[in-house]
Amino acid sequence: MTYFTKRYHPPGTSPGTLIQREKREKAPLKIVLTDYTDSEYTEQELASPEECRTYLERETITWIHVQGEVEPDTMRQLGKLFGLHPLALEDVINSGQRPKMDDYKEQLFVVMAHPVIDAEDTKVKLAQLSLFVGHYYVISFHPGEDDPFEPVRQRLRNHVGRIRGRGADYLLYALLDMAIDEGFPVLEWLGDEIEQLEEELLDVPTSSTLHRLHHLKRTMLILRRMLWPQREVLNSLVRDDSGFILDENKIYYRDCYDHTIQIMDLIETYRDMVSGLLDVYLSSVSYRLNEIMRVLTIIATIFIPLTFVVGVYGMNFSNDQSPWAMPELHWYFGYPLVWLVMIGIVAGMMIYFKRKKWF
Amino acid sequence: MTYFTKRYHPPGTSPGTLIQREKREKAPLKIVLTDYTDSEYTEQELASPEECRTYLERETITWIHVQGEVEPDTMRQLGKLFGLHPLALEDVINSGQRPKMDDYKEQLFVVMAHPVIDAEDTKVKLAQLSLFVGHYYVISFHPGEDDPFEPVRQRLRNHVGRIRGRGADYLLYALLDMAIDEGFPVLEWLGDEIEQLEEELLDVPTSSTLHRLHHLKRTMLILRRMLWPQREVLNSLVRDDSGFILDENKIYYRDCYDHTIQIMDLIETYRDMVSGLLDVYLSSVSYRLNEIMRVLTIIATIFIPLTFVVGVYGMNFSNDQSPWAMPELHWYFGYPLVWLVMIGIVAGMMIYFKRKKWF
Amino acid sequence: MTYFTKRYHPPGTSPGTLIQREKREKAPLKIVLTDYTDSEYTEQELASPEECRTYLERETITWIHVQGEVEPDTMRQLGKLFGLHPLALEDVINSGQRPKMDDYKEQLFVVMAHPVIDAEDTKVKLAQLSLFVGHYYVISFHPGEDDPFEPVRQRLRNHVGRIRGRGADYLLYALLDMAIDEGFPVLEWLGDEIEQLEEELLDVPTSSTLHRLHHLKRTMLILRRMLWPQREVLNSLVRDDSGFILDENKIYYRDCYDHTIQIMDLIETYRDMVSGLLDVYLSSVSYRLNEIMRVLTIIATIFIPLTFVVGVYGMNFSNDQSPWAMPELHWYFGYPLVWLVMIGIVAGMMIYFKRKKWF
Amino acid sequence: MTYFTKRYHPPGTSPGTLIQREKREKAPLKIVLTDYTDSEYTEQELASPEECRTYLERETITWIHVQGEVEPDTMRQLGKLFGLHPLALEDVINSGQRPKMDDYKEQLFVVMAHPVIDAEDTKVKLAQLSLFVGHYYVISFHPGEDDPFEPVRQRLRNHVGRIRGRGADYLLYALLDMAIDEGFPVLEWLGDEIEQLEEELLDVPTSSTLHRLHHLKRTMLILRRMLWPQREVLNSLVRDDSGFILDENKIYYRDCYDHTIQIMDLIETYRDMVSGLLDVYLSSVSYRLNEIMRVLTIIATIFIPLTFVVGVYGMNFSNDQSPWAMPELHWYFGYPLVWLVMIGIVAGMMIYFKRKKWF
Amino acid sequence: MTYFTKRYHPPGTSPGTLIQREKREKAPLKIVLTDYTDSEYTEQELASPEECRTYLERETITWIHVQGEVEPDTMRQLGKLFGLHPLALEDVINSGQRPKMDDYKEQLFVVMAHPVIDAEDTKVKLAQLSLFVGHYYVISFHPGEDDPFEPVRQRLRNHVGRIRGRGADYLLYALLDMAIDEGFPVLEWLGDEIEQLEEELLDVPTSSTLHRLHHLKRTMLILRRMLWPQREVLNSLVRDDSGFILDENKIYYRDCYDHTIQIMDLIETYRDMVSGLLDVYLSSVSYRLNEIMRVLTIIATIFIPLTFVVGVYGMNFSNDQSPWAMPELHWYFGYPLVWLVMIGIVAGMMIYFKRKKWF
Repeated sequence: MTYFTKRYHPPGTSPGTLIQREKREKAPLKIVLTDYTDSEYTEQELASPEECRTYLERETITWIHVQGEVEPDTMRQLGKLFGLHPLALEDVINSGQRPKMDDYKEQLFVVMAHPVIDAEDTKVKLAQLSLFVGHYYVISFHPGEDDPFEPVRQRLRNHVGRIRGRGADYLLYALLDMAIDEGFPVLEWLGDEIEQLEEELLDVPTSSTLHRLHHLKRTMLILRRMLWPQREVLNSLVRDDSGFILDENKIYYRDCYDHTIQIMDLIETYRDMVSGLLDVYLSSVSYRLNEIMRVLTIIATIFIPLTFVVGVYGMNFSNDQSPWAMPELHWYFGYPLVWLVMIGIVAGMMIYFKRKKWF
Repeated sequence: MTYFTKRYHPPGTSPGTLIQREKREKAPLKIVLTDYTDSEYTEQELASPEECRTYLERETITWIHVQGEVEPDTMRQLGKLFGLHPLALEDVINSGQRPKMDDYKEQLFVVMAHPVIDAEDTKVKLAQLSLFVGHYYVISFHPGEDDPFEPVRQRLRNHVGRIRGRGADYLLYALLDMAIDEGFPVLEWLGDEIEQLEEELLDVPTSSTLHRLHHLKRTMLILRRMLWPQREVLNSLVRDDSGFILDENKIYYRDCYDHTIQIMDLIETYRDMVSGLLDVYLSSVSYRLNEIMRVLTIIATIFIPLTFVVGVYGMNFSNDQSPWAMPELHWYFGYPLVWLVMIGIVAGMMIYFKRKKWF
Repeated sequence: MTYFTKRYHPPGTSPGTLIQREKREKAPLKIVLTDYTDSEYTEQELASPEECRTYLERETITWIHVQGEVEPDTMRQLGKLFGLHPLALEDVINSGQRPKMDDYKEQLFVVMAHPVIDAEDTKVKLAQLSLFVGHYYVISFHPGEDDPFEPVRQRLRNHVGRIRGRGADYLLYALLDMAIDEGFPVLEWLGDEIEQLEEELLDVPTSSTLHRLHHLKRTMLILRRMLWPQREVLNSLVRDDSGFILDENKIYYRDCYDHTIQIMDLIETYRDMVSGLLDVYLSSVSYRLNEIMRVLTIIATIFIPLTFVVGVYGMNFSNDQSPWAMPELHWYFGYPLVWLVMIGIVAGMMIYFKRKKWF
Repeated sequence: MTYFTKRYHPPGTSPGTLIQREKREKAPLKIVLTDYTDSEYTEQELASPEECRTYLERETITWIHVQGEVEPDTMRQLGKLFGLHPLALEDVINSGQRPKMDDYKEQLFVVMAHPVIDAEDTKVKLAQLSLFVGHYYVISFHPGEDDPFEPVRQRLRNHVGRIRGRGADYLLYALLDMAIDEGFPVLEWLGDEIEQLEEELLDVPTSSTLHRLHHLKRTMLILRRMLWPQREVLNSLVRDDSGFILDENKIYYRDCYDHTIQIMDLIETYRDMVSGLLDVYLSSVSYRLNEIMRVLTIIATIFIPLTFVVGVYGMNFSNDQSPWAMPELHWYFGYPLVWLVMIGIVAGMMIYFKRKKWF
Repeated sequence: MTYFTKRYHPPGTSPGTLIQREKREKAPLKIVLTDYTDSEYTEQELASPEECRTYLERETITWIHVQGEVEPDTMRQLGKLFGLHPLALEDVINSGQRPKMDDYKEQLFVVMAHPVIDAEDTKVKLAQLSLFVGHYYVISFHPGEDDPFEPVRQRLRNHVGRIRGRGADYLLYALLDMAIDEGFPVLEWLGDEIEQLEEELLDVPTSSTLHRLHHLKRTMLILRRMLWPQREVLNSLVRDDSGFILDENKIYYRDCYDHTIQIMDLIETYRDMVSGLLDVYLSSVSYRLNEIMRVLTIIATIFIPLTFVVGVYGMNFSNDQSPWAMPELHWYFGYPLVWLVMIGIVAGMMIYFKRKKWF
């Protein structure tokens, strides 16, 4: 996992420069136009941004969704068509931005983080979601392979709820709401992970448990860093007075804001839980070490002086007159008996260690 | 214990959709209507929300309490009857909400967390309490089996104090006050737990003490997460200018607010105490380990060289002329005497370890 | 020490209910009335609150001090006489309140915490001090046995300083100032304790040192929790615009406020010091353990292979022709010599351990 | 690395005194003047500040860049020429200042920290960047050897973007933007370091890993201390109402401000990651110690009593009649066989330890 | 070192009472009067405050500096002469005050902490600096032996800079600036200490290193507690609207304020560094302990079973027919050879431990 995921221009380049830094194997670019009013609905895949020019002239709501890694050229065309600010275009290209809302008189520019659980790696990934909203249009960018907004498009297509009868601001809300609510399954998954780790740690921790715990902490750190500023974004959308968000729809943005707060709240609680886990782990490790050392010390300190005493006399008691002078040495089964005694000791110890879960 | 207790819709569904996510064995639903003025009092169990329509038309205070897990259908009926906002209805169904107050012009919507000690498990559980207050009605939802508001209903029935002569806002206060004050027995119980754990930790900690400590920390974490925002809720009720809370009753809300502050204050102090306990535990474990190692080291380092010396000579001193050459070997009771010495050493050690509480 | 010291009504009782929760062996109740102007001074012990009625009608400053645990009946009488709010009376009875100031139009209600060092137990105790101030009267409640305000009464009696010529607000200041300044001897005592513990910890810590440290931390936690809100109380008194505090006396309240800040400041510093102590303790314990283990390891690893070698040969060298085959075994004083060598080793070790302070 | 890098005058000297504290081997001083309008461009290296006097009289944008350690004399000349405040001049000389913006009616004075990775030592160094901006001029000071602003000068020279057509405030923005963006490669390098350290720590940590970790933490501490106040500087530039920054250019300063926030955000995340690393390291060290001790204890406690038993009998079983009395002692290859057994034990142990990575 | 350095009156004494708590061997009192305008300058040592009465009537700037522990009588005289408030006088006598600024209409009262490195003990001491400023006078108190303000007096005497031509507020600034700048050498010294300790800790820490580290932490704690409020003092002086500080001089106070921020900033960084040191120390100690235990465990677990095997056979192989039955025992130099082998083992071990720095 790379920690520095921000893309940036070489320091000193002119602001608003659009350059592509490296050629990665990219998701193929797909531009989907959706144009609707309460009564009409058009959906079309565009070969180039130019094709949407006709829709712009009418007072219908136009939603252009750009899926995949977008090239500087496409950005420039879109920028010219909609009058987008070069600094905003630069932020779409230089992904890894912190969520924010910028008010460029002509349009609002919103950057969000879209969390997805990567099913294979059991990892959480964050994709930058860039959104422009004007009075009659929304432009959305998502760099991944799969279009996350299909459910919203379906609601539009099937005329579900109030969405078709409302403006571009309600569409923006629907997209943001969806991106934010994707946080809940992620948190559910994190909660399950914590529960599992807790059980392992309190039972028999292995070194892989610690690695997973570390991994979890890091994931939460990154999630938190990206999701925290979303709260501010929603807050400024709720208080927005730029005229792009109608007052009648602010109640929905407030609901969205509540969700971001719930998500941040849970992340903070999880963080506290995970550090609590580490504390408990360290305490129980100390407790166990203490117990192990106690057993070792008791047995060693008892036998060490005895062994010394035994060593002193070499046990060469040889008073032939005395029947007390190590008669065992002269028994018929003396030697095998000693072996039996010793095997008995080993067996007893084994059972004791087994019970203490030292094996 | 599951950490993620929030219910949520699949991301992308239309806002205000009411769906039931899973069929749990539910507490049977019970709807209790209480309708009163200073002089009249009616109490009635309703089969369906529709039955309360007649009470709504009069200027009496109507309190509808819904006990148990409510179904989407009932919610929809209530919503239509009282003109409740779909987003608020959604929040009642999707339990696990963070305490909050929303002002939907027609009514206030308040979400609170109601803590209960589960007597069997010695666990604290939090139930979501949802309250709507209009000018002449209060609607309350509690998902548990037992109605926590019986004492308030009794005060209404018996005309205790000022409650019957005042409006819906005072009833709301009475319900909130009750829910908040339930925090005090919970904190008393937590305080007792901490005292017990402290004694155990400073005396002879076992690994179960650590597990209980961990459990306590987690409980406090969850309590804190849910109770903290209640402070803000009460604060915004005290400062409320929506017209639902009369100024003459604000003094009671301020008292309620004081209680939430006292509760949060105690929880913070408990948290500090619990982490203090962990520190002391770790320190005393280190202290003990140090002492154990010191004893082991002293005894081992003294006897190891002696045993070596003794080993070198095998103690085969055999100068027949010298009376100094291990005469003990030739004594009549030499061998039993050595055993006596050794048994004495073991006994001495045992007593020493016993005193140090190593057993 | 019990951690939950708050008294509370069963959740759901009517606000302002005055009930006594348990019958504790109580300090006997004593009501002292002090009535004064610049020229006159009366002091009288009252059998019942009713007796002060005559003083209330005149424009003299009347100070009623209630010492000991007050009963609901007495509270009700006082409440009626002075028009005190039931919620405030409830707060006097339910002791363990967080310091606060409530403005009930007719009077100010101030709750403070009064710290006392318990000489026998070397413990700090906190008593709740409740104060009502009106335009011409002050009522004070203190639950302990000894009246802490005797010095103030003496100043009144002896006409020391400006106190007799000023109003009820100056009397309130004198009482608060005294209660707050009681914090200084407590902090002085805590400072001494910390110094002592520091010396012990850096010298030879025993397990009782750790217990005392833990005790100290807890005391500071409780002190801090109660003293912190006093700052806010004083702050709101300085900024008060209810008309009870005259502007000319605010300079004294500001001085008082400075003292609370100094006290909180010192407590915070002490807290940092105590956690610093724990860190140093843990570090020096680790350092010591490390050193002990090093010695053990050096001696053990040197002698273990030697003992093995010696064991291999059983040291039965028996080449009669060779003068090199353990001639020591045949010396006249061989055996006693070996004992001397061994006693020498033990003595040397003892001196070494003594110097390292392992005994 | 020295921790105290601030230069200061002896306490008590008159404010605005310009003295050079020590003679360090300094980078040679270089003064570069750049004078431009949209249509003209002059670039010139100055021998003395006096030479720029002619440019000052015209309404062209004049940029004077002073590279290297500047002497009090040059400072005084520049101060007189541009009317700079003595306190500001003092701050340029006494490097190690905290980033700040001071508004001296005649000009703005901005101090920034310019981070550079020192390629040889893999260390990050911070140089103080001092900037004065008036209505038609910018004066910049950088104490290092290499001019960091060459890319900006190139943009001016080649008339790239909007820079030539705008005022001194846009030039200031270009310089600040460049200095701030230098933070990104530094953070990228830090991110790589953390990844490397993480791998080492989780694999086989050596004591040098710990030293590097410590070094990293310290670097981040210093970076953070210097970069944090930059945020405030940018913020006050965005909100500036001194008239030096035109409103039309504030959008660029806001972009700059976003970058400082992203940088601080990353540094905070890195800090959390590094402390997370230390926690994981300590936990895995504890885990490993525990495992080592378990193995030692098991083997020692099993063999110690056996060795005692064996010692008791000295194994001198000598019943000639019994075939069970240690017949091995009389085998032909008895002794070599014992050696083989022992070598086998050692070899087995070696393989076991190797697998556990104890070697 | 005593932690509680505050002096206070017995709780309950009248405010503004001036009493001397204990008779300490005091620095002899010295009162220095300096009276100046732009053209005149008088300096005089006063026997009693009364002597300055003549200077007060003229509109010259009068600076009275009281060096050493001042007695209540002198305070009372000064108080009467200049109309100082009794609460302020009390704060001068009861030293150990937290830095603060109080505005007593007739004059400003400023308390500052003046840090000095005690050369002998390598300790930092803080003296309370009390300053009164009126329209034409400054009165300063410093309890130490040496007058720290000599450099300022010298600037006055020699007419250096602008100081003689400006008012009492500029003199106050000069004194504060000096007291604050004394923080820089203290911080430089602390920085050096930290560097030294770091080297020691990473090299071979002894227990005295830990003590010094603890000492350093404590010093920083105390410094921080006293210097932090100075920031607020300077801030309120910059924003002051009492009329004592002229607007034209505020730029100097702002410079002073910047210095306090730089000092606090460095102290915070140092604090983080010192706790970083402790972390690194604990980690490297754990690392070392781990390594020691690994070596002990490897050697012990290898030899313990071998010794057992050897013990079993007592190595009494005695098959006379077999040349393999311990022929070493019959060699001529058998015994000395064994000693040589053993000495070789010891020497080898010693070299190994030496290299690991265990000695």
